[in-house]
This record gives sequence, structure tokens and C-alpha cells, in this order.
Amino acid sequence: MKDKGVEYEYIEEDLANKSPLLLQSNAVHKKVPVILHNGKSVAESLIILEYIDETWKENPLLPQDPYERALARFWARFIDEKCVIAIWEATVVQGEEKVKAVEAALESVAFLENHIQGKKFFGGEKIGYLDIVAGWITHWLNVLEELGDIEILNAEKFPSLHEWKQNFIQTSTVKDCIPPREKVVDYFSFGINYMRSLKANKE
Amino acid sequence: MKDKGVEYEYIEEDLANKSPLLLQSNAVHKKVPVILHNGKSVAESLIILEYIDETWKENPLLPQDPYERALARFWARFIDEKCVIAIWEATVVQGEEKVKAVEAALESVAFLENHIQGKKFFGGEKIGYLDIVAGWITHWLNVLEELGDIEILNAEKFPSLHEWKQNFIQTSTVKDCIPPREKVVDYFSFGINYMRSLKANKE
Repeated sequence: MKDKGVEYEYIEEDLANKSPLLLQSNAVHKKVPVILHNGKSVAESLIILEYIDETWKENPLLPQDPYERALARFWARFIDEKCVIAIWEATVVQGEEKVKAVEAALESVAFLENHIQGKKFFGGEKIGYLDIVAGWITHWLNVLEELGDIEILNAEKFPSLHEWKQNFIQTSTVKDCIPPREKVVDYFSFGINYMRSLKANKE
Repeated sequence: MKDKGVEYEYIEEDLANKSPLLLQSNAVHKKVPVILHNGKSVAESLIILEYIDETWKENPLLPQDPYERALARFWARFIDEKCVIAIWEATVVQGEEKVKAVEAALESVAFLENHIQGKKFFGGEKIGYLDIVAGWITHWLNVLEELGDIEILNAEKFPSLHEWKQNFIQTSTVKDCIPPREKVVDYFSFGINYMRSLKANKE
């Protein structure tokens, strides 16, 4: 929204105690994020980004060419589904399964390394749709690595992604949006313990 | 493509023996569908539909209003992820788990029933993006119901969806695209047996 120069109010949700506003705005999935605009609500991060891009047309987030748009959407889904899930799995699992899970996570990140090679941002010279989708890599991933005792974003293995990370966090519109690290740690510690206890109960 | 009046060639893939063309066109997921156009390839059904809509602008598939577009995209993902997976699960599982799995599938279909109520098509007066995304319900679902020994699209429970199904299959551009039933049966029989054998080996 900052890139678009649009005023907005950020409402934080306590995910352990979801507000009636959230439950009503996203009755299907009951999840954040949700954007409220003109008395209507739009849910799911990738869909919200396209909504923002189509509603406020200045500083487009997606490329203009249909093929480039399709490519951006393809990689967005890849990040949002494959990468997130593979890295989360590698973080949570323990014991023998861990080696395989880390390998799968590295494999998915290698596709991104390949895609960002030679570019400052996924969007080219400036931050675009795909940079925002991949943004969590810059401030969540190192927390997951620490809590899960894994190494994913090794600078030698993934030099282009590493450079992109530096470019991304130095961008003025990003700097102010990054959540405080201790909040991210709390959030994921809870999630990891919860998933592990579920798994332990199943065995 | 027929709705757009665009000439195309349909290339069938033997999924047990994927062609080099498929493996090269969708190197990440190695899955159909893929569209080849101007020497480039675009993969994943929802992304292909948006690519087609943005490349050939006559007879738009998506609505024009940003909020309506977001809504169509939201339900497309819901169908493509939640519904498909819930119905597939209900088809495959056996024994005690089946009751719960069927309930979950019915729950996801109930959201669609709610969304189509009062409309001829998801797209309004004519077939649009979401109708195409939901199209499998009209020619795959009854095969899954039969093979999985379940009932999902009960006409009394889901009268609006049932009516939509009739409207959809009577549409001229749809009629010629529906695959022969025996092919669908073969394809899913193989998939169901495969999933069940995987599960049996795990237990």
C-alpha cells in the first residue's frame, strides 16, 4: 500500500482469539490477511495483491505483459505453496526425516535462486508483486532456520537470493513494515511446538 | 479458447509416459495443463485461464470490476484447492474415516451452493472464469461418486449447483470438450487404486 501511496490502517489480529471482524470478513478460511475496502473484504495474500494492483493503478506491482504476468503468478504460487510448505516441514520434523525434508526445501529454494539470477528484484529494477510474495524469506526464514536448527539460505549456495534479500530489506517502503524479530520468534515457536506435539500424539 | 474464437491444437499427454515437450514446458511441476503460445509456455490451469483472458481480450472470462475479480479468484482457489482435495479424499478413503471425509467434502460443496444461488452461471448470465474452473464438477464428480461409492452432488441438497450443472453442459462451447466417460473412469480408477495401495503399504 505504501508503494501505491495509499493511506491504510493496519489492524493486528490475535490468532489465538480471532475477532468477530476477521471471522465475518473471511468466513470460509477464517485466516489473515484480509483487506477491508469500501465496506467489502478480500482475503488471501496473492488475491489481495492483485486487488490492490487493479484498484490503485499507480506503481503497478505486476508486469504489464500477459506472459510476464503469468510467470509472476506461477512463481508466486510456487513460493506460496511449494516453498513455504517445504521449509515449514524441514523446520518442524525431527530425527531421520529431517535430512530428506531439508533436501526438499533446498530444492525448492534452488528454483528461486535460478529465477532471480541477474536481477536486482524479481520485479526487475524495482520491487514488484513477486518480491512482496517472497518477502517472508527476508525476515521469517532466519527465525525458522534458528528454531528448526536447519540452514537453508546459505549465501554461497544461493548468492543471488542473498543479494536480493539485502536489496529488499534496504528498500524504504519495506523497512518500516518488517515485524519485530521477537514477535516472529514467539509466533513460530508456538507453531512448531504445536505441530510437534500433534505428531507425537499420532505416533 | 472456443469462447475466445481462437484456433488451437489440443495435444494429449500420456501421464504414465510424459513427453519431452511436457517435461521441458513445465520443468518445475512436470504436470498438465500447459499452454504453448508464441514459443513460450504457461503452466497451471488458473494461471493459463488468466493468460488467455489477458492475451485475447474478446469475450472476457473474468469480470471487469476489481472486487468481482478478487471474488472470482478467491472461489477459483477454493474450488481448485479445498473442494478438489476434500472430494478426492472422500473418494479414496475407506472404512471409518469415510464418514468424516464425506462430511468435509459436503461442507466445501455447500459453500459453492451458496455462492451460485440465484445465478445461471458463476459468471452471471454467461459462462466465465469460475464456471470453467468448476467445470470438472459436471463430468468428473459423478465418476468419483461412483468409483468411491459416495454421494456428493445430491440434487435436493444442492439444487442451485445441480441447475448450474445442467446449464453448463448444455452450453455449445462446453459440449464438444467433455472427455469420454470411459476415459475419465480409467484415469480415476488407476489413481484411486494407486492411492489406496500407498496407504495400505504405510499401515
